[in-house]
Amino acid sequence: MQEIAIEHIVQQLAGIREHALQQRQRLTQPPKLPSRKVLAKCVEGLAAALFPNRLGDSDIQPHAINFYVGTTLDKALRELQQQIRLELAFKAAGTPASEFNEQAHALTFTFAEQLPAARLQLDTDLEAAYQGDPAADSVDEILVSYPGILALIHYRLAHVLHRLGLTITARLITEIAHSQTGIDIHPGARIGDYFFIDHGTGVVIGETAIIGNHVRLYQAVTLGAKNFPKDANGHLVKKFERHPILEDYVVVYAGATILGRITIGKHSIIGGNVWVTCSVPANSHLTQAHSDAKPIPAAA
Amino acid sequence: MQEIAIEHIVQQLAGIREHALQQRQRLTQPPKLPSRKVLAKCVEGLAAALFPNRLGDSDIQPHAINFYVGTTLDKALRELQQQIRLELAFKAAGTPASEFNEQAHALTFTFAEQLPAARLQLDTDLEAAYQGDPAADSVDEILVSYPGILALIHYRLAHVLHRLGLTITARLITEIAHSQTGIDIHPGARIGDYFFIDHGTGVVIGETAIIGNHVRLYQAVTLGAKNFPKDANGHLVKKFERHPILEDYVVVYAGATILGRITIGKHSIIGGNVWVTCSVPANSHLTQAHSDAKPIPAAA
Amino acid sequence: MQEIAIEHIVQQLAGIREHALQQRQRLTQPPKLPSRKVLAKCVEGLAAALFPNRLGDSDIQPHAINFYVGTTLDKALRELQQQIRLELAFKAAGTPASEFNEQAHALTFTFAEQLPAARLQLDTDLEAAYQGDPAADSVDEILVSYPGILALIHYRLAHVLHRLGLTITARLITEIAHSQTGIDIHPGARIGDYFFIDHGTGVVIGETAIIGNHVRLYQAVTLGAKNFPKDANGHLVKKFERHPILEDYVVVYAGATILGRITIGKHSIIGGNVWVTCSVPANSHLTQAHSDAKPIPAAA
Amino acid sequence: MQEIAIEHIVQQLAGIREHALQQRQRLTQPPKLPSRKVLAKCVEGLAAALFPNRLGDSDIQPHAINFYVGTTLDKALRELQQQIRLELAFKAAGTPASEFNEQAHALTFTFAEQLPAARLQLDTDLEAAYQGDPAADSVDEILVSYPGILALIHYRLAHVLHRLGLTITARLITEIAHSQTGIDIHPGARIGDYFFIDHGTGVVIGETAIIGNHVRLYQAVTLGAKNFPKDANGHLVKKFERHPILEDYVVVYAGATILGRITIGKHSIIGGNVWVTCSVPANSHLTQAHSDAKPIPAAA
Amino acid sequence: MQEIAIEHIVQQLAGIREHALQQRQRLTQPPKLPSRKVLAKCVEGLAAALFPNRLGDSDIQPHAINFYVGTTLDKALRELQQQIRLELAFKAAGTPASEFNEQAHALTFTFAEQLPAARLQLDTDLEAAYQGDPAADSVDEILVSYPGILALIHYRLAHVLHRLGLTITARLITEIAHSQTGIDIHPGARIGDYFFIDHGTGVVIGETAIIGNHVRLYQAVTLGAKNFPKDANGHLVKKFERHPILEDYVVVYAGATILGRITIGKHSIIGGNVWVTCSVPANSHLTQAHSDAKPIPAAA
Amino acid sequence: MQEIAIEHIVQQLAGIREHALQQRQRLTQPPKLPSRKVLAKCVEGLAAALFPNRLGDSDIQPHAINFYVGTTLDKALRELQQQIRLELAFKAAGTPASEFNEQAHALTFTFAEQLPAARLQLDTDLEAAYQGDPAADSVDEILVSYPGILALIHYRLAHVLHRLGLTITARLITEIAHSQTGIDIHPGARIGDYFFIDHGTGVVIGETAIIGNHVRLYQAVTLGAKNFPKDANGHLVKKFERHPILEDYVVVYAGATILGRITIGKHSIIGGNVWVTCSVPANSHLTQAHSDAKPIPAAA
Repeated sequence: MQEIAIEHIVQQLAGIREHALQQRQRLTQPPKLPSRKVLAKCVEGLAAALFPNRLGDSDIQPHAINFYVGTTLDKALRELQQQIRLELAFKAAGTPASEFNEQAHALTFTFAEQLPAARLQLDTDLEAAYQGDPAADSVDEILVSYPGILALIHYRLAHVLHRLGLTITARLITEIAHSQTGIDIHPGARIGDYFFIDHGTGVVIGETAIIGNHVRLYQAVTLGAKNFPKDANGHLVKKFERHPILEDYVVVYAGATILGRITIGKHSIIGGNVWVTCSVPANSHLTQAHSDAKPIPAAA
Repeated sequence: MQEIAIEHIVQQLAGIREHALQQRQRLTQPPKLPSRKVLAKCVEGLAAALFPNRLGDSDIQPHAINFYVGTTLDKALRELQQQIRLELAFKAAGTPASEFNEQAHALTFTFAEQLPAARLQLDTDLEAAYQGDPAADSVDEILVSYPGILALIHYRLAHVLHRLGLTITARLITEIAHSQTGIDIHPGARIGDYFFIDHGTGVVIGETAIIGNHVRLYQAVTLGAKNFPKDANGHLVKKFERHPILEDYVVVYAGATILGRITIGKHSIIGGNVWVTCSVPANSHLTQAHSDAKPIPAAA
Repeated sequence: MQEIAIEHIVQQLAGIREHALQQRQRLTQPPKLPSRKVLAKCVEGLAAALFPNRLGDSDIQPHAINFYVGTTLDKALRELQQQIRLELAFKAAGTPASEFNEQAHALTFTFAEQLPAARLQLDTDLEAAYQGDPAADSVDEILVSYPGILALIHYRLAHVLHRLGLTITARLITEIAHSQTGIDIHPGARIGDYFFIDHGTGVVIGETAIIGNHVRLYQAVTLGAKNFPKDANGHLVKKFERHPILEDYVVVYAGATILGRITIGKHSIIGGNVWVTCSVPANSHLTQAHSDAKPIPAAA
Repeated sequence: MQEIAIEHIVQQLAGIREHALQQRQRLTQPPKLPSRKVLAKCVEGLAAALFPNRLGDSDIQPHAINFYVGTTLDKALRELQQQIRLELAFKAAGTPASEFNEQAHALTFTFAEQLPAARLQLDTDLEAAYQGDPAADSVDEILVSYPGILALIHYRLAHVLHRLGLTITARLITEIAHSQTGIDIHPGARIGDYFFIDHGTGVVIGETAIIGNHVRLYQAVTLGAKNFPKDANGHLVKKFERHPILEDYVVVYAGATILGRITIGKHSIIGGNVWVTCSVPANSHLTQAHSDAKPIPAAA
Repeated sequence: MQEIAIEHIVQQLAGIREHALQQRQRLTQPPKLPSRKVLAKCVEGLAAALFPNRLGDSDIQPHAINFYVGTTLDKALRELQQQIRLELAFKAAGTPASEFNEQAHALTFTFAEQLPAARLQLDTDLEAAYQGDPAADSVDEILVSYPGILALIHYRLAHVLHRLGLTITARLITEIAHSQTGIDIHPGARIGDYFFIDHGTGVVIGETAIIGNHVRLYQAVTLGAKNFPKDANGHLVKKFERHPILEDYVVVYAGATILGRITIGKHSIIGGNVWVTCSVPANSHLTQAHSDAKPIPAAA
Repeated sequence: MQEIAIEHIVQQLAGIREHALQQRQRLTQPPKLPSRKVLAKCVEGLAAALFPNRLGDSDIQPHAINFYVGTTLDKALRELQQQIRLELAFKAAGTPASEFNEQAHALTFTFAEQLPAARLQLDTDLEAAYQGDPAADSVDEILVSYPGILALIHYRLAHVLHRLGLTITARLITEIAHSQTGIDIHPGARIGDYFFIDHGTGVVIGETAIIGNHVRLYQAVTLGAKNFPKDANGHLVKKFERHPILEDYVVVYAGATILGRITIGKHSIIGGNVWVTCSVPANSHLTQAHSDAKPIPAAA
């Protein structure tokens, strides 16, 4: 078979890389980022530690569960600590990762301490799914098959990391769930107990969204930003509060879009495909103005 | 490196697990569920047996195909039988899985008998995709690359299982496809021949939906429930008929939402993003009331 | 355990296969198609060659990067060449694959020559993401975590192949990204520099769409065809220009649907959930006619 | 590529299989045997539980070792129990494996109870290796690199199983070590504390051999049977005591062959390549009669 | 971490490679050899086809065995055909592998035709092992655990290939067994039925050895060449008959060395560690001249 | 299934571990050792860098070989550097591994510099095998199939490490080859050019052996120590010169045993199974005193 000479392509790519680094004013050796693959294993381990019978080794014997939880947790936390160290070093470009051992350790420990609370909160989410879906027969089924739960496990762990300032690690974790479920929850969002997302594909929950307890969302709901103000230099203003607040017991049906720092009052119901950009009081029912298209008898 | 003491976290998690089990009034050793990973392999094997050249070993020699189909089928059915046994035991909590050998065998056999019919039906779906997509050059391409077909292979197998009462196994199988394609078809839905879903991301088809022959859906179409009645105790009424009926030759464009036990008559066309909650007669054309936003010349 | 007799099922499936082949007037041994699994590895290799530190081996030492890029490229191109050969042979059914060695080699070489340009264009996409998302802290984060970028890496490589006539290989590659991101870009679409898709789940970009520079799309945007004309024999007319043109600096918000061979003029903004089927001039702002549902105080 | 028709070869092989089964007067479905691959994993797990830092996960944190040991042990014992069940069912051909659950459980439990004793004995073996090899710098090195220790870990576990009557499982385990080290110790042999085999390739220790404490063997030593008496029907007499007894502190140098039920008295030294078929008293020194070949000045 | 500059090492290695190729008067692109890894899988597949229950998928259902055998055989033969093609091309350096498709096919077919005979012969070997080892309880155990049988499966398949002139492929296959068992049988040796090697480590059987029926060897037996004559140019004469002939019913005990083209007559017994370089008549018993070392009472 | 309570076994094992550590006066957290598994991959990488076409990726295109060698080398050296760091830290128990970064780097670099010389020396070994074995048809075959060459690749790399004081890493590497080939060469031995080991199973070459150029050994040859003197405290004297010296052109036939710090003079030939404990002059021919057992006509 003939050869494909690649020498000059390699050289061109090297030139482009160098140019790109210069543009970003970076050192030749860019600091390493946390790894999506490692974090995926990490979260798998943490989920197994939280729900050992359902998401871990389902053949585990009852008396050995604590052994299993301990081992799985220890391994996942060791891996996580490495990833945290990488994020710390990346953000302090120039300082070698080994300088961040202690800080990474402290952050991992703080994270680990919050795992029991995360489990408790996920139990409320499972309960909400069971109460909210007429097709659900048991909590166990939900835990192993509902994409909404998978997304929440990732989000609730990522949110703890996000609050500890580990934004990259947190984002990588929620993107793992996004890829598997089509549900895109920013780890910065704040979400209360008993949260339920049904079907879920296409749901987007923005960075500064706040969601109360007992809230329910259906597929393709967006809790987004309305606009993106720029500063005097024409650059986007970053990180300001720009996403909606949903109070307790709000229900949002499929395809609804809620934009901007507005508040949806308690017990409100937002109908499918509705577009909301202003706050609404408690107990509101929003439906599409012309809720139904009219049948037009087909000519031919 | 410093250690992260996890002993007390393990203890807390054990306490939470025990509490959760008590709440659900469960035995200490919860019955095992079918495994998503095993079922994914199972469906891969069944798909390979149904379409050996395209979804199986593409290097297989023609004279050896029957050997290959037999081997692949035998392995997939043995695995499936184990999973069925687990579902039976799970639902009869307390009875050991080994008591369900015969019943699992009988159900697996009944399932297997329906595989040729499933293949024939999938051939109609492939034909519909070929006829329905201007971008499609051959049936083979569709089989290996269209997410709609991947979702239908999973659904058609899962539906057979669902009719046999194996609701958990069935659901796990359609969720595998949901994760890979963004198409969420409940295994309980009843779908006719020559069904085509184009693009598919965000499609949701509910548990009691009924779809005729030659129906075509585009991405983000929802066939959902309109509301969720509660019984006298305030609990959701489960499993009643609450999703739409689409008669033969109906086409539903992207983003349309059809809710409730309504009927869309034969040859009707439902436009993109339309919201439908009442039945429409045959040959209807529904489009958004204000089908188009008006261009507003930008001030600045 | 009892056996499941499968002999007759194997025979029935063989009969169905034979029948299906006859219907498609095919030889007994259907030509092999390119493999999605192999192409997934291929694209992984090409992405690693384009961005070795971020998408390749992140522990690679600086002085060894060119070695790494060369090796990775060589391997990926060898694999790609095999797949291209399969596509060529598939399309010339009856001619053995070995006849296409030289043509496959020439096409692979032409493809490889365009990799540096692809990298440069992806750098503009990364820049656009960084400029366009208030939540983004660095270009590196975007490269490793944003689904929009993953989809564009696949699309930009697939598009080169599509222009070389390798439509099946190209489509398989974009479907790999579709499955992982929910973003469905047809490899035939033409997309300019500085393209950014945020969140992305549910985005569909059709085969003949044309997108200028500095365009931004949000989740669930469809750039689709309006209708599907049939020829005199009742068959779909295939491959004609049927998708929209978006000029430079157009922004399309979540859920908007733009259909048909229409043109959205420069600097236009298409609001969320808007449905557009006619061309609009430059600088247009489209928003939903009844942009907001009205709050109805809940009776009970 | 041309096909290789294999149909008739498959038929011929089926005929041969049927014939072979008939000859052994066996049922059509032969009972399943324990699996070498599963047992290899089992022993790996048990070794990791016995020496967690050196043969298990070397990154495990100190406080998590007990968790790790418990998990590893639980998994290995569950697997072992399955294999034991298979052996019991194989030996009672006709009775299904599920009848042996309790017996397999009891045997696994008895085995597990002897693991601490096995560890203690292996510690004496490690000590003997350290004392006996001038090239050894530490006990840790020996544990991870000496084939003699690898063989003894397998033997000591297999021997416990052999004493419980699980001869097939035991033999499979020692053959795993045989393949890796060239050291062939029958699991039926009885071996005291502080046993050391240096280099080891070619060592054979027969089924009924008895070895005292503080014994040392070098490579290619055989402790074998002298002859194989037949019974009145001309069949080999099986399982009688036919291998040597080595008392405490015996040393046997490379290539020596000791055959038959003879006794080598305490503190004896058997020289390299020596052939011994009679008992020798304590403190004997055996060397080859003509211990050295004479140099013959080469003519040409 | 500091870098290790390797550029100049890579250059030096390139220089050495070029020099080595020049010395061997070879083209720049050396022809590819068959792959040990692929052949290992091949033999695993062939062994599974020959003994499906014991060396294949032990869970296979009885009615599906022929399917399994056919599939496994087809796959193994396809792989083997590729390897054969590589050997043919290697030996005809300069001719591309694709020229040897037909010849490789014919050779693979001839090989496949001899598989039933190979199975029959291996059945005699199993029988011999059962009759010859007092420690063996069943033929099944022997098949899964005896290294001698593993070596013979490899040898008997390799020998068929060797007779077809595929010497490299054949040698690679016997070396796979050599590595696993320590038994080194040259594929050119000719070995009759009912052959048994006990323990086996260190056995060497040379290229031109001839072994009758019902022969038994123990560990570390060498059937080797006595000397290596050189031709007029001082090069070794290759491939002449230089290894022993063992007639029917010969037994050779551990460590015996038999060298040169001599004949060991029927029913002879060669004792352990004996050194034989002359032919012996039928029914001979050879034992070491001074069969036993004398005990020397140890002074201190 | 019943449970196996393992809590008390875990406790017992913990007690034994603690006791063992105390006896060796060790800290609770024993320093980590280099890993056999990682080193196996390392050597595989180094072998691929030395012989890229035969032991690396045989499909590599000629122009891409240097890329491949560079990448493979870089990866292998990075891994090796980690292992070296572990050995340094192990030997300086108490000092954390991170303190040895620079020293590990320097040692790895020194090692890498010697790779070209190692390749050149291995080329002489290949040449010797080709010249020395009448059954060998080409150097390429030898490289991929001869166990003697596999053992030498490991030894020659390990020896470089041993000379750098990395005795544990070196030993682990030669033990990898020992397990695969049955050839046990201590990495401390010094071996000249053109060395050939035929068959090889059972060969043992001791730590202080010295072997000249053009030496040839057959299977089961031992170059060992004669005795093990003890010091005043009854402990073995370690590391003194105790193994033989073989001068240039010495040949040692199968099963010969050469013990102690003796010298075998140039061009000497040591016959099979011979036992040598005194030096012999150049050109000696040693054969067994009673070179042949006498045939005894069998009575019955």
